[in-house]
Amino acid sequence: MSSIRTDLAMEARELYSQQNKDMDGIESESEEEGGIEVTRVRVTSLKGEVKLGKPIGNYITIEAGGIKEGEPEFEESVSHRISEELKTLLELNRDSTVLVVGLGNWNITPDSLGPKVVGKIMVTRHILELIPDQVDERVRAVCAVAPGVLGITGIETGEVIKGIVDMVKPDVVLVIDALASRKTQRIGTTIQIADTGVNPGSGLGNKRMSINEESLGVKTIAIGVPMVVYAHTIARDSLDILINEQFNKGEAGAEFYKSLGEMQEEQLDAMVKDVLTQGFGDLVVTPKEVDMLVEDVSRIISEGLNLALHDNITLEESRRFLH
Amino acid sequence: MSSIRTDLAMEARELYSQQNKDMDGIESESEEEGGIEVTRVRVTSLKGEVKLGKPIGNYITIEAGGIKEGEPEFEESVSHRISEELKTLLELNRDSTVLVVGLGNWNITPDSLGPKVVGKIMVTRHILELIPDQVDERVRAVCAVAPGVLGITGIETGEVIKGIVDMVKPDVVLVIDALASRKTQRIGTTIQIADTGVNPGSGLGNKRMSINEESLGVKTIAIGVPMVVYAHTIARDSLDILINEQFNKGEAGAEFYKSLGEMQEEQLDAMVKDVLTQGFGDLVVTPKEVDMLVEDVSRIISEGLNLALHDNITLEESRRFLH
Amino acid sequence: MSSIRTDLAMEARELYSQQNKDMDGIESESEEEGGIEVTRVRVTSLKGEVKLGKPIGNYITIEAGGIKEGEPEFEESVSHRISEELKTLLELNRDSTVLVVGLGNWNITPDSLGPKVVGKIMVTRHILELIPDQVDERVRAVCAVAPGVLGITGIETGEVIKGIVDMVKPDVVLVIDALASRKTQRIGTTIQIADTGVNPGSGLGNKRMSINEESLGVKTIAIGVPMVVYAHTIARDSLDILINEQFNKGEAGAEFYKSLGEMQEEQLDAMVKDVLTQGFGDLVVTPKEVDMLVEDVSRIISEGLNLALHDNITLEESRRFLH
Amino acid sequence: MSSIRTDLAMEARELYSQQNKDMDGIESESEEEGGIEVTRVRVTSLKGEVKLGKPIGNYITIEAGGIKEGEPEFEESVSHRISEELKTLLELNRDSTVLVVGLGNWNITPDSLGPKVVGKIMVTRHILELIPDQVDERVRAVCAVAPGVLGITGIETGEVIKGIVDMVKPDVVLVIDALASRKTQRIGTTIQIADTGVNPGSGLGNKRMSINEESLGVKTIAIGVPMVVYAHTIARDSLDILINEQFNKGEAGAEFYKSLGEMQEEQLDAMVKDVLTQGFGDLVVTPKEVDMLVEDVSRIISEGLNLALHDNITLEESRRFLH
Repeated sequence: MSSIRTDLAMEARELYSQQNKDMDGIESESEEEGGIEVTRVRVTSLKGEVKLGKPIGNYITIEAGGIKEGEPEFEESVSHRISEELKTLLELNRDSTVLVVGLGNWNITPDSLGPKVVGKIMVTRHILELIPDQVDERVRAVCAVAPGVLGITGIETGEVIKGIVDMVKPDVVLVIDALASRKTQRIGTTIQIADTGVNPGSGLGNKRMSINEESLGVKTIAIGVPMVVYAHTIARDSLDILINEQFNKGEAGAEFYKSLGEMQEEQLDAMVKDVLTQGFGDLVVTPKEVDMLVEDVSRIISEGLNLALHDNITLEESRRFLH
Repeated sequence: MSSIRTDLAMEARELYSQQNKDMDGIESESEEEGGIEVTRVRVTSLKGEVKLGKPIGNYITIEAGGIKEGEPEFEESVSHRISEELKTLLELNRDSTVLVVGLGNWNITPDSLGPKVVGKIMVTRHILELIPDQVDERVRAVCAVAPGVLGITGIETGEVIKGIVDMVKPDVVLVIDALASRKTQRIGTTIQIADTGVNPGSGLGNKRMSINEESLGVKTIAIGVPMVVYAHTIARDSLDILINEQFNKGEAGAEFYKSLGEMQEEQLDAMVKDVLTQGFGDLVVTPKEVDMLVEDVSRIISEGLNLALHDNITLEESRRFLH
Repeated sequence: MSSIRTDLAMEARELYSQQNKDMDGIESESEEEGGIEVTRVRVTSLKGEVKLGKPIGNYITIEAGGIKEGEPEFEESVSHRISEELKTLLELNRDSTVLVVGLGNWNITPDSLGPKVVGKIMVTRHILELIPDQVDERVRAVCAVAPGVLGITGIETGEVIKGIVDMVKPDVVLVIDALASRKTQRIGTTIQIADTGVNPGSGLGNKRMSINEESLGVKTIAIGVPMVVYAHTIARDSLDILINEQFNKGEAGAEFYKSLGEMQEEQLDAMVKDVLTQGFGDLVVTPKEVDMLVEDVSRIISEGLNLALHDNITLEESRRFLH
Repeated sequence: MSSIRTDLAMEARELYSQQNKDMDGIESESEEEGGIEVTRVRVTSLKGEVKLGKPIGNYITIEAGGIKEGEPEFEESVSHRISEELKTLLELNRDSTVLVVGLGNWNITPDSLGPKVVGKIMVTRHILELIPDQVDERVRAVCAVAPGVLGITGIETGEVIKGIVDMVKPDVVLVIDALASRKTQRIGTTIQIADTGVNPGSGLGNKRMSINEESLGVKTIAIGVPMVVYAHTIARDSLDILINEQFNKGEAGAEFYKSLGEMQEEQLDAMVKDVLTQGFGDLVVTPKEVDMLVEDVSRIISEGLNLALHDNITLEESRRFLH
């Protein structure tokens, strides 16, 4: 099932475990509360890294399907949960400076999540430097940039960020990115927080450089939200479901399955490509209303960040600040 | 294959003819020139109307896959072709007034084609009324509106248009709409021109009233471009391809097919729904770059209209006018 | 002082009263509460109409300079005040239908107030028609359109509205428009509510047709907010202040004034034109941040409307509806 | 006349020379061709620097009032002229890398010129690095960023640029910025090219750090276009014109002037502040259509840059590249 692309460690683990028993190097646990399910996947060794295609580290996934209902209270509880989970990885001091980086292309709606989050961050670093007396002691130094993508700037996104990090010298870098998942119900409702940063090929923008602690020289946490499923994934999943259904149908199914045995992964992929011929670039599946969805999700994420980055700030205060 | 939605008469005909021989009430012919294929489907009787689910009338489809290459010369040749085909249906007089209507929701990228076209139309009616002496005799009276959608205005789009038609009394109404097709390669590359207007349930915005000669009291021509394929269609098409492949595999295939014989359309649809669970609204497949695509296609369409609505106007002149 | 343009009846009255004693046909009274000053100007006769250049009717002006501070509580109190004043003119029944019309050009930032307000209105008419059982009894039928401007559509704005009114048959039309005032401190902080509609030449868009009860056949209330001062007004006001200062300086002032006596209004205007040569269209004075200002003011106005048009709706409820 | 703010060296020189004879340290010459006037101001010594408030260096001003007419041919000739003047300062080699920086706030229309120009630059550096074989030899390595402003990022713009310069190591930095001028007719029609970079307090965004060769360690050229006149300048200019008119009126004028002699600059400024009370931030004068103007001017500038940065590129080619 190599042709199914997912940026979620949790989904990579699910896919892997469907066909393998040996979970050595991969730990996972889940809990649910108030309609929000949190799954913690830990890749603990190189073995695990190879199995999932995800670097050693922690991957916290917050699933909040209820976001679809549009209830402000529920959305606020998601922001609070993001804040709490984020804090466990951030370990900020009183004087920490945080750089928030919104990855992605602002001209491509589903890829514009990062820049949209950045536009709603409580940016305070300059105020603390220029008029420290007028700033509440709960406020930490936060700065934020949306560096654009290679095709727009001609510069590797990692290079732009590295240059800014070298000037600003933040204690932590928080990278926001739009992801691709495997399942449509996770679009706009699932948030992954990882202390491994962003790695080549991940996200909608296909980075080619790592953006992580190793490349930047400072702790780097990535926050990602699936905004699309690749059309190819949808088509392949449909085939798999049909094949499994048939297999469970007794003799005829067995016969069918035998014939399928001769079908390679490549053949199934080729079949799907017949359905998906098109020439403009990757085909993606999104809700028709993805423009509004990006708006909503970026607000939920940015409020989670505002709560996490400053001490004892209320949502009311962060909204008033941004007003 | 009832669950596959297409707004193109040409595709409806294709789907119908795959499983039926009796094409009574449906005529079709194609020609190709300079990389542009033109198919003319004619629904000639109620029988044809029932078969295709499209009203009696003419449906001209311009397929221009080369649009993907982004060559200005080719795009201009598509605009010219749109103009020529449109003129055969328009039959304008020297003093005709034309109302261009851009259907769709400007807040939903793939549904914003109509409003985007309207923004690039050479609007001249007011100039001809206020300062007729300063207007070139080749210029016809053109006005243009984007009436919004029911969810935004609280008024049926057809009602808004009818109200404006009653005031302006145009000789022809041209309605632009974003469509759904069955095949991904037609997204942004295929233009349908129909003298039957727009009918309930068609387009991305799910109109509930007809917008046609009968409802408006004036000749109404619809121009539509597929901007999405429904995700459901992609998934169903994948299943159909797999099933057909298997059928052609001799004995095992025949066995498999027998077992499939017991599967209802509804079962296949249910299977697909398992893959496509999500809660925000319809899932659509688009190129990731649909924002730019809408921009490009709206320019090609609007230039086709500008060429068709005025006499012997050049593209250079229409661009200068809009500058 | 004929060259100073203002759309506010209150300012027209101020200007008139500076040079005239006879206020026959014009009534005016003011009250202040909670930082909001409300002035009610009543033009009671044709005499008053000629004096002010404003039709017979009621003009309620709400001045809320505190909007500049950006305090959410104060802004909400302004919305409540708009709602209360509006209700005195609206006189809605349980079954009244209201059409909200946002005048102005969405491509010109300070003129985009009307369309921006329309985008934040609780639109309910279609819900009441389609699924009346699911609608709260406090909700009234509200629909909303932004008809564009003559240069964009080629149709007089009044014609478009008349056409829609004839189809929808609302009981009241509420027209929102961006205005020009005389004083910069009123930009974005003053709201005029008038039962005389919108009249030729008023607003930033220079309408040429009346949009009022006479032209539409239904009660029409206009809500306007100054978003610009014409640069010409600024320059002329500067001259007037200098001239008055000099006049108060005793003998030299008297001498100077005598020499000014020979200066015509036209000469002063010509002088100002020397300063304001430019060729792109009217020069306007706005705060540099007018993009954000239009956003804020449109929210305050739309919330005032949402409170006024439905019964006992809270701001919380209207925000949730629009979410 | 200290209260009149201008970012144009040419205007600073005009203002200075109205009241002073000693032009030591300042050189200036003009030429006109095809409706375009080019003025070259050279500040040659610290004396000149103090007089004009502009650092030692070259300031080329291109005045093209005809831009208002919107003729494509004329606009193209302006782009060509920008290219030619720019080349005299750039001195590029075959292998030079150029970083284009668009200063300004994309949320404030008249300040969004820089980011808008960046969006229309032929960005090629990544293509030359990744697939050098596929690139025409005339193409030079160009990259481009819009770093945002202090209030949005929390980081000094100069710091962001310095960080990127240290990573990318360009041979030249080209900084685009929206300016304030003294005269309304220069809005959107005048282009200043300076080899002194951008200095504190200049531009609409009020930088506080220099962005020049000294701070970046690499040749830095600034391209600026006035997009506003401060309202204060308009008001003060009106007063000055009135005062001068009166002075030329013989005896009464002389008397008046004597009385004015007692008026300080500060008094005139205070008078103007009476007219311009407002609380949202700086009041600026712009054409009402500034949104469209920024669009047009950014195209003219970016095309000038595209012509200058690559060898023997035509406008047709640069447009096709960006398509």
